[in-house]
Amino acid sequence: MICVLAGGVGAAKLLNGLKDVLPSEEITAVINTGDDAIMHGLYICPDIDTVTYTLAGVNNVETGWGLQGETWVAMESLKKLGGETWFNLGDKDLATHLYRTARLSEGVGLKEITKEIASAMGISVNLLPMTEDRVETMVTLLESGDEISFQEYFVKHRHEVPISSVRFNGSQQAQATHGVIDAIREAEVVIIAPSNPLVSIAPIFSIPEISNALKERKEDVVAVSPIVAGSALKGPADRLLNELGYEASVEGVAKYYQDWINTLIIDKADFDSVENIESLGINCVSTETVMSDPQIAASLGSTLLGLKR
Amino acid sequence: MICVLAGGVGAAKLLNGLKDVLPSEEITAVINTGDDAIMHGLYICPDIDTVTYTLAGVNNVETGWGLQGETWVAMESLKKLGGETWFNLGDKDLATHLYRTARLSEGVGLKEITKEIASAMGISVNLLPMTEDRVETMVTLLESGDEISFQEYFVKHRHEVPISSVRFNGSQQAQATHGVIDAIREAEVVIIAPSNPLVSIAPIFSIPEISNALKERKEDVVAVSPIVAGSALKGPADRLLNELGYEASVEGVAKYYQDWINTLIIDKADFDSVENIESLGINCVSTETVMSDPQIAASLGSTLLGLKR
Repeated sequence: MICVLAGGVGAAKLLNGLKDVLPSEEITAVINTGDDAIMHGLYICPDIDTVTYTLAGVNNVETGWGLQGETWVAMESLKKLGGETWFNLGDKDLATHLYRTARLSEGVGLKEITKEIASAMGISVNLLPMTEDRVETMVTLLESGDEISFQEYFVKHRHEVPISSVRFNGSQQAQATHGVIDAIREAEVVIIAPSNPLVSIAPIFSIPEISNALKERKEDVVAVSPIVAGSALKGPADRLLNELGYEASVEGVAKYYQDWINTLIIDKADFDSVENIESLGINCVSTETVMSDPQIAASLGSTLLGLKR
Repeated sequence: MICVLAGGVGAAKLLNGLKDVLPSEEITAVINTGDDAIMHGLYICPDIDTVTYTLAGVNNVETGWGLQGETWVAMESLKKLGGETWFNLGDKDLATHLYRTARLSEGVGLKEITKEIASAMGISVNLLPMTEDRVETMVTLLESGDEISFQEYFVKHRHEVPISSVRFNGSQQAQATHGVIDAIREAEVVIIAPSNPLVSIAPIFSIPEISNALKERKEDVVAVSPIVAGSALKGPADRLLNELGYEASVEGVAKYYQDWINTLIIDKADFDSVENIESLGINCVSTETVMSDPQIAASLGSTLLGLKR
């Protein structure tokens, strides 16, 4: 059994790679829900959906979110009505949010709903929302000092505005979803996927129960750096690291993860940083991490499993 | 100024007819909200939408609900997920419910939202939900004794199951939408549209303020019978009248409306009933009421206006 702490796209690719080298049933993903949003009354879980759609092979590879072969009839009509359309929801994608919202209103928990959707899409990886309680990633803008939701920052402002801080509203009171703590305790290895450390992985860390369970497994925690040669492959991880006082480099990632991990996997482009990272007391492996095709993802999966075998 | 108490399809056709013989701005429709439903977290107002879509000329004439040229991508995807799809929502139609739900969550009232949607669709008839409070038309099934929502009865069970009673949950505490009482007081004539008396008009009557205002205007209240030659043109009005102890005839309608109206308009097919109805102390006019084309609707509109001029 292995456990993967997951955000969106990077995590989804890694899970696909792991699925190629390990039976799906042996993989548990603990997925960030801090950027969940309620839009038009619908409950939306962007990271869960990205992972689910990717594992089902129906994700839109070009956009990095949403579904292949999507149509946009509802959004076009909403625009004509003068509605808010900055958070674009395709017609097929809407069905996921309608389903989830209906089930939530029936009193079913997010874990069960996530499982139902995954199962309907033929997925046997165990997908667990980090919590069934509401944790909201909130971002403070540097210039105005306004605090906005993660989706407003990420989608509405296209993560183009500098920020001064991030917090996870509700995390101190939040409980880990049933099964998360056991998955961390029983995993052969706990993998931190190459997701944004500050806004995809940090919300998972922010839940006290999860944080404690992870620290007890520190010797078996391996992270994959989402920063390659000083840049994020996707999204604002590099800028956020700089803005929040870290360095946008594999060293910066190593320092951020220092208290949590035993090993950091970095890309071969960053080979020269291996020594620096090991001087922090972190094992470091340099390999191909840019999962531009399924073979590379599977190979990275093998490397991760090989560390403990 | 005239005021029209409105349900769905029949009312929408009549409003279209009135709009042809009177400036839109002089028409206020007070629309039933008792069959509003929350589906998948979305707030849906079937009667308001039917009236709005019909006045905008974008309604689906075949089905009697929804929009022309609709697509069904979201519902097809929802079905694959195993979601509830008995209440069919087209992709374009979904936009209306997304818009309404988003605006409600921003604290905007149903009156304002209804106006915004109507305005975006180019409608100048004044459309007022009967109340901004929640009133729920609840139906008790004859055989099981179960009480279900109107939409479950009407759509899920296709109004094929006999019922023993109807009630309007919340109506005693509900307040009329601002503007409704003035519209009734100031109208030259108050028209009860040819909608289902028991489940489209009765919910409007069930709000005490509206009931009182209507009774004060009884001399100027005219109803159009939704029953023609013993049958409802659409929907279960005939069966409901029978099931709830009335007669499925223009006489049955007259008796049901007795306390509220001065005049009943019946179809020429029911000409022989004029005397019976007048013997109840109700003026009766027999004319063409089946609005199978816009000319007939406009002509019926003229007849209604002519009564008071």
